[in-house]
Amino acid sequence: MLNIINALNWRYAANAYDTNKKLSDEQVNTLIESIRLAPSSYGLPVYKVIHVKDIETRKKLKAVAWDQPQITDASDLFVFAVKTDLGDASVDDYVNLIMETRNVSAESLSKFAAMIKGTLKSLSEDHKTTWAAKQAYLALGVLLSTAALEEIDSTPMEGFDKKQFDEILGLKDLGLTSTVVCTAGYRSENDSSASMAKVRVSKENLVIEK
Amino acid sequence: MLNIINALNWRYAANAYDTNKKLSDEQVNTLIESIRLAPSSYGLPVYKVIHVKDIETRKKLKAVAWDQPQITDASDLFVFAVKTDLGDASVDDYVNLIMETRNVSAESLSKFAAMIKGTLKSLSEDHKTTWAAKQAYLALGVLLSTAALEEIDSTPMEGFDKKQFDEILGLKDLGLTSTVVCTAGYRSENDSSASMAKVRVSKENLVIEK
Repeated sequence: MLNIINALNWRYAANAYDTNKKLSDEQVNTLIESIRLAPSSYGLPVYKVIHVKDIETRKKLKAVAWDQPQITDASDLFVFAVKTDLGDASVDDYVNLIMETRNVSAESLSKFAAMIKGTLKSLSEDHKTTWAAKQAYLALGVLLSTAALEEIDSTPMEGFDKKQFDEILGLKDLGLTSTVVCTAGYRSENDSSASMAKVRVSKENLVIEK
Repeated sequence: MLNIINALNWRYAANAYDTNKKLSDEQVNTLIESIRLAPSSYGLPVYKVIHVKDIETRKKLKAVAWDQPQITDASDLFVFAVKTDLGDASVDDYVNLIMETRNVSAESLSKFAAMIKGTLKSLSEDHKTTWAAKQAYLALGVLLSTAALEEIDSTPMEGFDKKQFDEILGLKDLGLTSTVVCTAGYRSENDSSASMAKVRVSKENLVIEK
């Protein structure tokens, strides 16, 4: 495994994938496990990940994602979709999960549950979706770090029609809406962007010391 | 360095820090470097990181962050602050940085620049801030992964008064607004949450295969 700084220097947003090289089940499981372990606000599960394997579906998605070839050519395609029905029931499910996992009483969690329910009630639907999306982006950061460490190429993508993605993947009926996409696999030898110098602001331009 | 999955299992949101243990300059630099290398949409730099060292400032911030002790007790405090003045000038600065880094012409980047400028113009101020905040959360995911790999304890935090943080840190005059906070350091021996089982949904509850 690469050192994390070397890994982050090694990674780039792959523009072209080798369509003949597929990730192993073990590699895919590592990527998914990293998302599963990613932190989120209160620990509340606010998104799901659609792992799109069907090639016909991936072709349809590509057509509403500016025809970006990564959608069909990468070994694997993950769509982060946030829950649109976050409310008391989501918190109750989560509290039950904590009770099972930690063998604690409902009573010991009642204040915590009330706090999360209060937070969810205080947010408009739009703000709730945005808040959930931020948690998905945090997990995306964990996923991209994990991929780089494992020398798996990846591409985070925002350039797609969310409504069309929701439609094609049947997300509305599942109480979900797509928020961000990530492909993973092996870069093509012909991807010229792989050799381009990484462009980043200097530490001095990033950090303000107070 | 830990394996990434072991690292993600090891990490938790530290509730209490050992106030006597400080991160080394090298450790802090690794954390900051991981943020600097984190990807963002188009590669555009849309946030800065306030590294708050002054203890009096940290006491003031704690008072407007539900008195959470991590704000003052952790070795280091990072505040992600997104740019509120994203527009043509930001894109021009970025294009100049690409030209310098890759030794390419302005002409070769003109379509790319126009596309980013168009995107920024198409977003309302609120949407622009939200979009920038998502990129900051992605970087937060990279930071948390890096900390875990280096066995550095961390706490991502949303529970703070953003307006008060902006005021105390003088962010408005810098064209910035606070979006999310992360502390880093060493856990206290007395942090009972360290030994609690991690609560996460199962893979079956996270992933939908299509």
